[in-house]
Amino acid sequence: MELRIDRQAMVPVVQQIVDGLTEWIVQEQVPPTTRLPSVRQIARRNLLSQSCVMEACERLVAQGILASRQGSGFMVAALLPDYCRGSNGSEAGDEQHGRVTQSPWRGGLKLGAGVLPESWREPDDLSYAIRQVARADMASLFNYNDPLGLPALREQIAKRLGLLDIKALDEQVLTTAGASHALDLIMRTLFKAGDCVVVETPGHAPLFELLRLHGIRMLEVRRTPSGPDIEALEALLQQFRPTALFINSHHHNPTGSCLAPAVARQVLQLSRTYDLRVIEDDVYADLHNGSGTRLAALDDGERVIYVGSFSKTLSSSLRVGFVLASDKLIERMARVKMISCMGTSRFCEAVLAGLLASGAYRKLVQRQRQRLSTDRVAALQALEDADWEVFGKPTGGLFIWARSPVADETRLRGHALRCGVQLSCATSFSPSGEACDWQRINVAYACDPRARQFFRDTAMDRPRTF
Amino acid sequence: MELRIDRQAMVPVVQQIVDGLTEWIVQEQVPPTTRLPSVRQIARRNLLSQSCVMEACERLVAQGILASRQGSGFMVAALLPDYCRGSNGSEAGDEQHGRVTQSPWRGGLKLGAGVLPESWREPDDLSYAIRQVARADMASLFNYNDPLGLPALREQIAKRLGLLDIKALDEQVLTTAGASHALDLIMRTLFKAGDCVVVETPGHAPLFELLRLHGIRMLEVRRTPSGPDIEALEALLQQFRPTALFINSHHHNPTGSCLAPAVARQVLQLSRTYDLRVIEDDVYADLHNGSGTRLAALDDGERVIYVGSFSKTLSSSLRVGFVLASDKLIERMARVKMISCMGTSRFCEAVLAGLLASGAYRKLVQRQRQRLSTDRVAALQALEDADWEVFGKPTGGLFIWARSPVADETRLRGHALRCGVQLSCATSFSPSGEACDWQRINVAYACDPRARQFFRDTAMDRPRTF
Repeated sequence: MELRIDRQAMVPVVQQIVDGLTEWIVQEQVPPTTRLPSVRQIARRNLLSQSCVMEACERLVAQGILASRQGSGFMVAALLPDYCRGSNGSEAGDEQHGRVTQSPWRGGLKLGAGVLPESWREPDDLSYAIRQVARADMASLFNYNDPLGLPALREQIAKRLGLLDIKALDEQVLTTAGASHALDLIMRTLFKAGDCVVVETPGHAPLFELLRLHGIRMLEVRRTPSGPDIEALEALLQQFRPTALFINSHHHNPTGSCLAPAVARQVLQLSRTYDLRVIEDDVYADLHNGSGTRLAALDDGERVIYVGSFSKTLSSSLRVGFVLASDKLIERMARVKMISCMGTSRFCEAVLAGLLASGAYRKLVQRQRQRLSTDRVAALQALEDADWEVFGKPTGGLFIWARSPVADETRLRGHALRCGVQLSCATSFSPSGEACDWQRINVAYACDPRARQFFRDTAMDRPRTF
Repeated sequence: MELRIDRQAMVPVVQQIVDGLTEWIVQEQVPPTTRLPSVRQIARRNLLSQSCVMEACERLVAQGILASRQGSGFMVAALLPDYCRGSNGSEAGDEQHGRVTQSPWRGGLKLGAGVLPESWREPDDLSYAIRQVARADMASLFNYNDPLGLPALREQIAKRLGLLDIKALDEQVLTTAGASHALDLIMRTLFKAGDCVVVETPGHAPLFELLRLHGIRMLEVRRTPSGPDIEALEALLQQFRPTALFINSHHHNPTGSCLAPAVARQVLQLSRTYDLRVIEDDVYADLHNGSGTRLAALDDGERVIYVGSFSKTLSSSLRVGFVLASDKLIERMARVKMISCMGTSRFCEAVLAGLLASGAYRKLVQRQRQRLSTDRVAALQALEDADWEVFGKPTGGLFIWARSPVADETRLRGHALRCGVQLSCATSFSPSGEACDWQRINVAYACDPRARQFFRDTAMDRPRTF
């Protein structure tokens, strides 16, 4: 067991041993109850003092990663904390729903996360809107919601979609408990097990998991910086006749790329030729700078189903998202929604409707966009300084997709651990679970000193080419 | 068209014509765009003035039930309001999620409803708890929830279950967006299309609709005042080997009956003999007086899955319910929950956890139980006075299941309409959609003067037996 201790690093040696041992367990997927080499062996092998190794092991016992048995040293705990259960593809989901905060990485910087940091959240407007509804709106405090969702909220959503050049009548908007719920309702209403759809690769794990839950087969099309690879898409459509394409038009997760207008038109042309439904997942829409091309805006028929969410901007706790589709389809989805959960929370929707109506939400996302723009410029510079390769240069949204000059995955994760930085799971972004060496960098975390240090460390570690 | 106008009634004649025409359209399922007889014909046939009929028709145009065409009189509107779409089994659902408030029956007394009236709701404690979370709990304001649900809430739920003699560890409790969501997760996790389960008849429409959505076949067992008919149940188990039984142990919807301890033991015995899962839906548990037998309390294995909700007592708007099951099964359901909607609202769960911890919830349901007890006694007396037949005499909960002495369904609904009372749809309570002449009476509405008048009218209308 090689711990690669760096005596020049700012991180104390004991902490480096803790990180190194955890990394070994996670990376090698060491099975629970495996006995560790003795403290003496570990110390000797890594030129460390036994007392340092002992202290590190005891910290790991306290974290639930190791267990100690009287007289027989340390072993990997029988019930490992979630994070240590290995790269089983659940990490991306974990990041998104905050489970990671219960892991031993509590203090880690979630550089690969899919949402804004809690420190960016501004409680005042939201708290005020909640108190208003709690005080004055008896019906929203107590009653079931309308099957389509709160009319006042749907009206506001339809108006906002108008600003994106998407024509939407109120009755074409169905509220959901977030975007995943929207995608679930679409799948329950339109598809059946064995159906075949196209997804972009890289893409996001929660979509792949949801499709797998429904038994829907996935065909992969490569995402380029301007959208899906059109030639490859057409070849798939010709050969397999899939029923739908799932696509992030703007600030694609994880690459951050946006659909170029020409590619958007080609996608729609193909959808007509091959009778393909397009599910446009646009949950990062409100973090977009300037105008942009939405498939739903170009669609003149009923091919495009559009999904949005307020989890990435306002709050992931309230659980509010929506779908836009033809009124016929919305009616079918509303029926499934009512039968499967008696509808969404009227209270949460009343809160959001209030924030949208007052303009507070608009101002909030303006501030977020501005702050992200500043951080994005700085992050791109830091990545360039460290010789990372960047996949397009995003002009909005949360993500930069980048590849480090450190070719060896284990070394890279070692750097991250020592700097207190969490990277995304390498296999999260592939429909078939293949590992890749690109990283999803969350702009909002990239200017943290730990991230800066991490980028610098990778630069120091790059292979010398001269 | 016989409108049965009562010139002695307190309801104005024009209103009676409005009700009579609506009743005719609903009861006879008159297809949209059907032309009505002329105003002159309707007036002559019912000995009314033409101006009264004309006024009534114009009100119905305003309500969207009729349309008028220049020169060709009135016809049934092409797009009827939901309530008028006939007895397609959706009414029970509608009542439960409040859509009925958008129907022309806006002012009607929802005598057959499944929840407490809004006028019974007490906003103070809930509003206070909400403001507390909004002010002080940043994480609950913004972040995703834990996959199993908020730990503080699950702990409180496990404690409350302990008071019902149900042993529950925190990790065996999964929070859901209400009981329907819980049932949906159970079905998604345990069953597949084509599976066969037993349901009680009469029962509640939302369960039947959910099972149909999943393509699960239903076998019917008759509900008696002490629980399911055990002999019939055993015969079904022997013949069809179903995989599960869905049951309301306490305050069964719609009959209000409770499982007798002996029957409960027999149900569990059968579940062991025939390897049957039991899904115990106990959403009215907190409206129960005294102690009672829960299957989950008797179960020593992992046969019983227990479902609860706070929609019937605290708020239907927050969407909080839960499932109790073995930790293995809970883990599988949590996975489906996370994949299909990224979890439940942490904010709503934090509010509820606060109310449970402070004791405010306990006191709230005590007050509800007390008030229901008084009203139940009065309602049973009113029904007895009017010669209604009662299915058992419930000692707790929300419902009385009763049959009027007016044998003719249309006459009975006519009385209800004239008194401004809404009855449940006659076909809501049967898995196969059969009509029945029993009514679900919501105790909380039964003492309203309109309900009293309705009961009295049915008594006056009973067949003379001397």
